[in-house]
Amino acid sequence: MELTQRLLAGDRRALARLISLVENDGVAARAALAEVYPHTGCAHIIGVTGAPGVGKSSLVNELAKAYRRRRATVGIVAVDPTSPFSGGAILGDRVRMNDLAGDRGIFIRSMASRGSLGGLAAATADAIKLLDAAGFQKIFVETVGAGQTEVDITRAAHTTIVVAAPGMGDDIQAIKAGIMEIADLFAVNKADREGADAAAMTIQMMLDMNGSDAGRWTHHGLLADTIHPEASRASEVWKPSIRMTVATTGEGVDALVDCLEAHRAYLEMSGRLEERRRRMAAMEIEDILRRELLKGILGCVSSSDMRSLVDQVASRQLDPYGAAEMLLSKLA
Amino acid sequence: MELTQRLLAGDRRALARLISLVENDGVAARAALAEVYPHTGCAHIIGVTGAPGVGKSSLVNELAKAYRRRRATVGIVAVDPTSPFSGGAILGDRVRMNDLAGDRGIFIRSMASRGSLGGLAAATADAIKLLDAAGFQKIFVETVGAGQTEVDITRAAHTTIVVAAPGMGDDIQAIKAGIMEIADLFAVNKADREGADAAAMTIQMMLDMNGSDAGRWTHHGLLADTIHPEASRASEVWKPSIRMTVATTGEGVDALVDCLEAHRAYLEMSGRLEERRRRMAAMEIEDILRRELLKGILGCVSSSDMRSLVDQVASRQLDPYGAAEMLLSKLA
Repeated sequence: MELTQRLLAGDRRALARLISLVENDGVAARAALAEVYPHTGCAHIIGVTGAPGVGKSSLVNELAKAYRRRRATVGIVAVDPTSPFSGGAILGDRVRMNDLAGDRGIFIRSMASRGSLGGLAAATADAIKLLDAAGFQKIFVETVGAGQTEVDITRAAHTTIVVAAPGMGDDIQAIKAGIMEIADLFAVNKADREGADAAAMTIQMMLDMNGSDAGRWTHHGLLADTIHPEASRASEVWKPSIRMTVATTGEGVDALVDCLEAHRAYLEMSGRLEERRRRMAAMEIEDILRRELLKGILGCVSSSDMRSLVDQVASRQLDPYGAAEMLLSKLA
Repeated sequence: MELTQRLLAGDRRALARLISLVENDGVAARAALAEVYPHTGCAHIIGVTGAPGVGKSSLVNELAKAYRRRRATVGIVAVDPTSPFSGGAILGDRVRMNDLAGDRGIFIRSMASRGSLGGLAAATADAIKLLDAAGFQKIFVETVGAGQTEVDITRAAHTTIVVAAPGMGDDIQAIKAGIMEIADLFAVNKADREGADAAAMTIQMMLDMNGSDAGRWTHHGLLADTIHPEASRASEVWKPSIRMTVATTGEGVDALVDCLEAHRAYLEMSGRLEERRRRMAAMEIEDILRRELLKGILGCVSSSDMRSLVDQVASRQLDPYGAAEMLLSKLA
């Protein structure tokens, strides 16, 4: 396939077109992904998440520039799990484009949920693969908020930065609620504002309270849980560190890059990188299975039969588990 | 089954035990659910969501008291989609218990994610059914935040209230990002604080901007999309309204209850209630199918075969879609 060959040669247009292809989840996309897949696995994938307003986009921009100064190429995938309801530019994309435009060592792509069959997490994972195969060395995956979608998306990352900002009060509570476990690094951005030290102290306190075995409660999916009894074998433990940054001036950004590199080195030395790779593979296979299996069953049943089944459940003549069993029996 | 008979007779202990049973997703739970299912469908299910710190729990408490004054029985399901990492009381549960304790017309239950196979959304949907079958007339489902999990959970509601509070700045942005579509009502809580009017105006502006066809972009799942081409037939349109509340004093809460009742009446008159029931049935069947199908396939493959497959994907010898296809072929 010509398009994939061009991608592997680093052609930006081919990359953009292939990402659109995976967003639309076609069969052509699948063939292309199979072709490029052997060429993936080199990139360092960095998830960046945090509540709206903490300055994630600006921070990612500065991190990208810092990496460019270190001669690394950078891909940025900005994910907006909201519906297309809002429209227009997402995640400050326009601003970003102006800021980083013209540097061929940087590739930026926004992904929005479109209610696509495949789901945003799957499309994002595929876009990351394409960037990886195209040779981008550092790939940032930026998501808004702290919901399950964001957690799912950042699970595709080797290193995850959780960004906070001072003076957001309840925001600390928001951090606690769900993403404490996924953080490898914390950045307290807007650190020139009042309350930055307090925010950092709160995070440190929560880290101390929770011990150093962050992540051990995280559920990685049926398949990953089945195949990874050894997930806790790595003996070295990473202690999430906290860095103060001011994205608007670039202050603290180089120190954060050093931390990112330290984490990457830790992953390699400790064997955790291999472990994360396998966990990511398991989660991805599981996601694909879920989708394909469901499509398979829906293909077996006429839409009028399906409608009548749903009507029976809605009118309480049949319970949902009973309905599911009837559909499952069509497969057997 | 004795337990379900006791539940249907309104026995609180039986209710509590059955909720624990569905949380653990056993076969016994499934039989019990099938038994009680014909007795469900009467309750008005009300989703309450919003960012941490806006006062959801206090507001739900006041709404519960207001409904009790109107002689309605009230169930409260407080859902915390975070991991059990934080431990302890969730969602201000202890405070709430003290406040509402002793009223047998109220039943409160917290649900936490435990990485259970069934998933929190499924367990919550089942707990709602049990409360419904036990005769509770108003069932509040309270969730933290605005992530996908919360959206999924509130999709099980007939009426959804999105709670905001003044002076949260970026919070309005958080509302925009994902839950605008699911709101039937907005409550600006802590309305005695500065900025309440501004918050209400911002919400109104966003509503005006988005038009009155909120929800039309929402993806309800493969199955629901298949069977519901007529989802837009209802001619009457509900315009989400905004109410100011001060949960700590009870101010504005009665007016909010009036709004809830108006929405319920609208749902019944317009035919939308029937439509939502069918959509909920479709989504639930789909969720169960996804889980059951995956379990089925994992049961067909030895864990060493599975591990070797994952290893091949992790080491880039096989792509994830290829691995999924190999597993799917075991079913055929």
